[in-house]
Amino acid sequence: MTDTKKTVYTFGSKKAQGNAQMKDLLGGKGANLCEMNLLGMPVPPGFTISTEMCALYSAGGRSIVLNRIKDEVQTAITEMESQMGNLFGSNTEPLLVSVRSGSRASMPGMMDTILNLGLNDKSAEGLANKTGNPRFVWDSYRRFIQMYSEVVLHIKPLNREAKNPFEEIIEELKKVKNIKLDNEFTAEDLKEIVYLFKSMVKKVSGTDFPSDPWEQLWGAITAVFDSWMNERAVYYRQLNNIPEDWGTAVNVQAMVFGNMGINSATGVAFTRDASTGENIFNGEYLINAQGEDVVAGIRTPQQISLEGSKRWATSAGVSEDERFEKFPSLEETMPKIFKELQDIGLRLEEHYRDMQDIEFTIQEGQLWMLQTRNGKRTGAAMVKMSVEMFEEGILTEKEALLRVQPERLDELLHPVFEKNNLEKAVVLGQGLPASPGAASGQIVFFAEDAVKWAEEGKTVVLVRLETSPEDLKGMVAAQGILTARGGMTSHAAVVARGMGKCCVSGAESFRINYKTRTLKCGDIELKEGDWISLDGSTGKIYKGQITTTAATLSGDFDALMNMTDNHATMKVRTNADTPQDAEAARRFGAQGIGLCRTEHMFFEGDKIKAVREMILAEDKVGRNAALAKLLPMQRQDLEGILWAMEGLPVTIRLLDPPLHEFVPHEEASQKEMAEEMDISVAVLQEKIRTMHESNPMLGHRGCRLGNTYPEISEMQTRAIIEAALNLKKAAIKTFPEIMIPLTGTPAEMEMQKKIVNKTAEQVFREYGQRIDYKVGTMIEVPRAALVADKIARSAEFFSFGTNDLTQMTFGYSRDDTGKFLPFYLENGILENDPFQVLDQKGVGQLMKMAAAKGLSERPDLKLGICGEHGGDPSSIEFCHSIGIDYVSCSPFRVPIARLAAAQAAIKNHKQIESESFNSQPELLEI
Amino acid sequence: MTDTKKTVYTFGSKKAQGNAQMKDLLGGKGANLCEMNLLGMPVPPGFTISTEMCALYSAGGRSIVLNRIKDEVQTAITEMESQMGNLFGSNTEPLLVSVRSGSRASMPGMMDTILNLGLNDKSAEGLANKTGNPRFVWDSYRRFIQMYSEVVLHIKPLNREAKNPFEEIIEELKKVKNIKLDNEFTAEDLKEIVYLFKSMVKKVSGTDFPSDPWEQLWGAITAVFDSWMNERAVYYRQLNNIPEDWGTAVNVQAMVFGNMGINSATGVAFTRDASTGENIFNGEYLINAQGEDVVAGIRTPQQISLEGSKRWATSAGVSEDERFEKFPSLEETMPKIFKELQDIGLRLEEHYRDMQDIEFTIQEGQLWMLQTRNGKRTGAAMVKMSVEMFEEGILTEKEALLRVQPERLDELLHPVFEKNNLEKAVVLGQGLPASPGAASGQIVFFAEDAVKWAEEGKTVVLVRLETSPEDLKGMVAAQGILTARGGMTSHAAVVARGMGKCCVSGAESFRINYKTRTLKCGDIELKEGDWISLDGSTGKIYKGQITTTAATLSGDFDALMNMTDNHATMKVRTNADTPQDAEAARRFGAQGIGLCRTEHMFFEGDKIKAVREMILAEDKVGRNAALAKLLPMQRQDLEGILWAMEGLPVTIRLLDPPLHEFVPHEEASQKEMAEEMDISVAVLQEKIRTMHESNPMLGHRGCRLGNTYPEISEMQTRAIIEAALNLKKAAIKTFPEIMIPLTGTPAEMEMQKKIVNKTAEQVFREYGQRIDYKVGTMIEVPRAALVADKIARSAEFFSFGTNDLTQMTFGYSRDDTGKFLPFYLENGILENDPFQVLDQKGVGQLMKMAAAKGLSERPDLKLGICGEHGGDPSSIEFCHSIGIDYVSCSPFRVPIARLAAAQAAIKNHKQIESESFNSQPELLEI
Repeated sequence: MTDTKKTVYTFGSKKAQGNAQMKDLLGGKGANLCEMNLLGMPVPPGFTISTEMCALYSAGGRSIVLNRIKDEVQTAITEMESQMGNLFGSNTEPLLVSVRSGSRASMPGMMDTILNLGLNDKSAEGLANKTGNPRFVWDSYRRFIQMYSEVVLHIKPLNREAKNPFEEIIEELKKVKNIKLDNEFTAEDLKEIVYLFKSMVKKVSGTDFPSDPWEQLWGAITAVFDSWMNERAVYYRQLNNIPEDWGTAVNVQAMVFGNMGINSATGVAFTRDASTGENIFNGEYLINAQGEDVVAGIRTPQQISLEGSKRWATSAGVSEDERFEKFPSLEETMPKIFKELQDIGLRLEEHYRDMQDIEFTIQEGQLWMLQTRNGKRTGAAMVKMSVEMFEEGILTEKEALLRVQPERLDELLHPVFEKNNLEKAVVLGQGLPASPGAASGQIVFFAEDAVKWAEEGKTVVLVRLETSPEDLKGMVAAQGILTARGGMTSHAAVVARGMGKCCVSGAESFRINYKTRTLKCGDIELKEGDWISLDGSTGKIYKGQITTTAATLSGDFDALMNMTDNHATMKVRTNADTPQDAEAARRFGAQGIGLCRTEHMFFEGDKIKAVREMILAEDKVGRNAALAKLLPMQRQDLEGILWAMEGLPVTIRLLDPPLHEFVPHEEASQKEMAEEMDISVAVLQEKIRTMHESNPMLGHRGCRLGNTYPEISEMQTRAIIEAALNLKKAAIKTFPEIMIPLTGTPAEMEMQKKIVNKTAEQVFREYGQRIDYKVGTMIEVPRAALVADKIARSAEFFSFGTNDLTQMTFGYSRDDTGKFLPFYLENGILENDPFQVLDQKGVGQLMKMAAAKGLSERPDLKLGICGEHGGDPSSIEFCHSIGIDYVSCSPFRVPIARLAAAQAAIKNHKQIESESFNSQPELLEI
Repeated sequence: MTDTKKTVYTFGSKKAQGNAQMKDLLGGKGANLCEMNLLGMPVPPGFTISTEMCALYSAGGRSIVLNRIKDEVQTAITEMESQMGNLFGSNTEPLLVSVRSGSRASMPGMMDTILNLGLNDKSAEGLANKTGNPRFVWDSYRRFIQMYSEVVLHIKPLNREAKNPFEEIIEELKKVKNIKLDNEFTAEDLKEIVYLFKSMVKKVSGTDFPSDPWEQLWGAITAVFDSWMNERAVYYRQLNNIPEDWGTAVNVQAMVFGNMGINSATGVAFTRDASTGENIFNGEYLINAQGEDVVAGIRTPQQISLEGSKRWATSAGVSEDERFEKFPSLEETMPKIFKELQDIGLRLEEHYRDMQDIEFTIQEGQLWMLQTRNGKRTGAAMVKMSVEMFEEGILTEKEALLRVQPERLDELLHPVFEKNNLEKAVVLGQGLPASPGAASGQIVFFAEDAVKWAEEGKTVVLVRLETSPEDLKGMVAAQGILTARGGMTSHAAVVARGMGKCCVSGAESFRINYKTRTLKCGDIELKEGDWISLDGSTGKIYKGQITTTAATLSGDFDALMNMTDNHATMKVRTNADTPQDAEAARRFGAQGIGLCRTEHMFFEGDKIKAVREMILAEDKVGRNAALAKLLPMQRQDLEGILWAMEGLPVTIRLLDPPLHEFVPHEEASQKEMAEEMDISVAVLQEKIRTMHESNPMLGHRGCRLGNTYPEISEMQTRAIIEAALNLKKAAIKTFPEIMIPLTGTPAEMEMQKKIVNKTAEQVFREYGQRIDYKVGTMIEVPRAALVADKIARSAEFFSFGTNDLTQMTFGYSRDDTGKFLPFYLENGILENDPFQVLDQKGVGQLMKMAAAKGLSERPDLKLGICGEHGGDPSSIEFCHSIGIDYVSCSPFRVPIARLAAAQAAIKNHKQIESESFNSQPELLEI
């Protein structure tokens, strides 16, 4: 029995056997070529071999696939011949074809393409005669031989040092002919190159270059299938989560040529402005050129619209006369074709309900469409287009929301470097893009200097090996932060993101010398005061000053954010430790604070002194004395934050880090502290020695502190409750939620809750007033997730601390992943950095378990997430799926989270409705 | 409606309303008193108030309980009166009673007891007349007043410093009377004391001491119920996992007196020797004495058997004449009663099928039984009795196995201090009992010195702040190891247990000064060369030298071990890194190696140099050169181990610790190393600096090393396979199992497996020979448990690394738990140290999940455990319950594990069979 299922789908002359819905089977390119035919648009005829044949090829091999498709391909070629009026393999009027890959998801440049297939010595002569353009024909032929030899016959340089054998031949002939550029070759020269190429190929491969067009075609088809598994394609798929079994289709299409004279042209058009999102038809073209030439940048491309052309001339400093003479628009040179192209563009946009990126060729006055696809765009454009298309009635609100990639909103929220300046700048090196934005400033190496210099009116960048909470003030004062160590979730990275401040972390190749106050990157040495610039979105570090442009939020942005509220079911809170952060987040639409880290308030001025007194205290009496000093300061800070969040819930976490984080580790600072505390350095150092921990991440911290030193929890609870009661006097409503960190056993939670409730009742009695408050816990220790039902007996809410939960579930210290995590990501051991994208299979499994167990014990348990993942769209979608009530993230990620939450709700709803929105999968490609 | 359920159970005159099966209702004491009656033994009559009334008392209070039991108690008292021939409350012939607690589990000394209840001024006079022994009566009366006042009326010292008011009165009277000892008081003196006591009670409590025996009785009963909830009882229950809702019973029993003259006596007897286990009836007694006197040690107790008496005289240096005169045996003084007692003892042992601990009183020539219970015994006795009782047909093999507490075998395996010397020794301090045994030696502070001194023939104890793998040789050379830091699973503890060497860790109060080579403990300072002694079973540290006696294993021990093989379904392997360890474990019956840590081989001589060369290598070429030097050394070591385990499986773990563990951290050693490696100290220190990790536990180690430096895994695999092939040539069968450490993702395992298999195939080709081997992984990262099904696709076995799994599941660094774990254990936040006893609820949940997931993917997956818990009996039982195939533990725990494995199998089986073995719950008490 033979499988009689169709394997080849033809298109041409406004007919097609496929359509845009069939991307899985025909790939994006093939499906859209069919669709354009069905829309009655001019498309060179051709056919698509289905992606199913790619799977068959992988499993069964060459001959099985060729047997399977042979008849259908031959029939399809015959159809193309009749439409194009020439013959495949003819010596006089040959049909030339392109063979291109095209998978479901766009994988630009990853797989192989072969153009001008069908040429051989005889047909080249015939075509030269027919076109009267032998130079073009021999040039096409030699290009075909090189492309085919490389892709199908695998004739490549032997190693990295070796020259490309084809380039070598060309270089030699240039010497002989004493010319410099390829386009100085005559037709005869190119013919000689063809001869030399073929001889070389025979010498290397042992056989003649195939002159039979059919043999060429079968070779090219199988080469495209092969390219699905080439190294860079496999890597790209890993990087972009594209399944291997999708496979690629093969598109065989009649060649059309934009280089057949002044009536020919080739170009690219966009239905809207990909940079700003404006609804303006635009693009570039070149007369008498092939597609490659537009990309290659040898000639300056011309604008297709007159308006665009004029704008271009202004910015490029070209006079109107020069512009009209040398760089006229398509609207001027071929007005009728421009109109036709614009009409097609608008129809395609309306049809696909998205901005289109179109490739076209004009061959001797006739317009041909070669490709259409949803266009890539900037974040700003994404927002503008979505909002406008919704207003124009093209998209529904849900569709408009789904059309914006949440991550891309980042581009709107942070300053960026001016493009022109950036291009000239010297790149010093590369770090991790820890916190987006652009910053330029003078180098300082110490937090105190950052503060001092900033007070003097200087703009500074703080450069450190790594930062610690002691550096907080300096980080506030600096424009940006650069660290040589630490990952995406290092102290510097986390704090900077919280502030919306640019940060590049883990620039491992940089050598920082605190003594000489210098920074070395390769051979370049910078000293204190020198200018440096950081791009926190790319991780690039530049020498010198680069001007930045500030972020401005458009009305479209506000409109989009308003839309999110109509759909999101999860709330979005923020992680904020200061009234300023809280206010910033509230402006972005935060609906509360999900994580207020009390320890971050401990580093300023008198507070750190009192904290250190507490740490050095020999007993509870001494600790209580120090805590009594801290109480009013802590209460005042909390009043500010609770006030800033008036009417909204504020989750306040009790002290979390190990106490040794509050004492200095450098000898100079230790001396200073000893003096201030009026003790000997030796005594202080002995104390610090006894506090040392081998693995502080897993040490004496979180509720382990609060339980062994209950007086700390008591003071903090008192500060919270007193702050809320003081605000109540001023008629300010607050909803404090007290959060216990690092709970691992039900008894730990129970003990902390007792301390909190007892203290609160005490304060209520003193004030003669009550307020409502909740007591809950972080779920950040794996064991807490495993016994979450028991913990829920005393916890009124859970907040998933996915940073620590990820550290402990994987057994990764986020400060120490530098030595293997990059390798793991490159080699596909991990799909994503689990500190950025939630590991749903492992960590997520624990979260799901904890949520279910917690709700089984306490049905009204409130569930939140306050780890870094609370600002990551895919993680937010997962949170929605397991029933989380709110996500919490740094202020500048609130808009992203709001959009992601709305999308999660819409997608979840969509799964229940039918799949009506077809261009959705394309979102992946943008 | 009234609840008519019985609440009081009477016994006496060979009748009883209860029996030994009713321990839950009547407590151990009450049930056994009933049982002895039913067996026709002479027991003073009495009754037991059921444990249910304790629960009712806790819930409903005093009056509800008294109402409920009143009638039944009165009826029971009447019954006692008729049997004893006297009257409760009579002035002339009063019935006196004791009121004692008695719960299901023995809680010695935890609850309150009242004796001689029923006395008042009038009945005391009457009784004095009747017995003609006023001194005895007034002495009993004053004791009763003190006991009753303290227990029921709560008249106690006001604070710790204050004197006991009763003792104060006695002291004062002694001064007045100018006497020194209590027994110098005359009857009149005692009568005065009674008067003074009662006055003081009235003054303090405001009311008269109750003279109504009924009021006394109700007060005593409720006081016993109260004592169930007293602080020390609650603490004891927490410590011993006794549920609160079990409650206590109350036993009211007619008093009998052993102090009524030379025809009276009191004593304790054991049916077998509790120390050696020998089948010899033995015990002690005193003529004309009360029970307290035997315990108080004022008079020297006499032996009950003649043989025992003679043995005692020999060891105490007492001549036969003196013995016969002053310390005759009961067998001699009251031969008939001795015979009666011995018969009863034998009957009880036969009846309870266990060694009995009996209390008896002889009142004027009549023997009364006051208590029988299963006797406590030493580990050696436990083994001997079990084996002999099986041989005697008293116990089945299963019962005999269940009768031995696995932990107690430890006593048989390690040397102990000679008791006499120990009593004289000065205790320096207390550490953790990290590795059992006793050691005496001269103090050395450095591993090199330990080696040197040992070579010179000295016996040394290595004293360190903490040990690291660099100290290994020194640990081998030392008799014992003492560290000031680190817990039960610190490096020192783990390695010492592996060697079966005595170790005390975490002696936090000790100050070690490496520079001055001194050790300070309080005011005592010891220096290098001074003698010190360690008890690794108790954690006690002694000054000076104490002689030890070596462990000797008896034939009974072997017999017991052989029995285990008839029942255990889990196999027992050992953790061993040297042929010596492997051989030791094999002698103890290990059935393979479950964990061979390859890194432990890296610290000796040339090996450490090659390892360091590898670490310092700039690139793969350099690393390969160093690895090539390591290969033959590693292969040779492995040949030794594989040979020692000929015919048995050997699980070899690839390199696990972070590489920085192999470089020195002290400056002096760094200088030495730099010299040896021929590099500058600065370069070395810079390298060490770049290797530094914030949390090494969660850093670049395990398969993260093996994947980023595949050449290390390749070398190790080659060493393993070559070793096995070399042994194959010598016809030695080996079964290597290659174990990948720290797997967290399926891809990590897959990548390591590929490296292993590829290398193995390469070696097979080179040798032209093959061997069988397996590749599997540790499950020690929480995520590995969560995705165990995926990991099982490439892993042929799992071995639970419960040390690290516990660290990561709890988020505890075992090196850093000192600051909160003791507090957590004391305050009941944790029931057990999770590094010693497997946390079944958390870590165990992950293990169960991993086992099920793994088996679902690979039904023949082999499951083992190689963490410390592999040697802990309760953890072993859990392992059995989740289907683990083998446990692996340090050589000296192999016997314990074998017994625990057998018990787990028997218990598991028993749950399916009926509950026929009633004395089982008593095992808890031993």
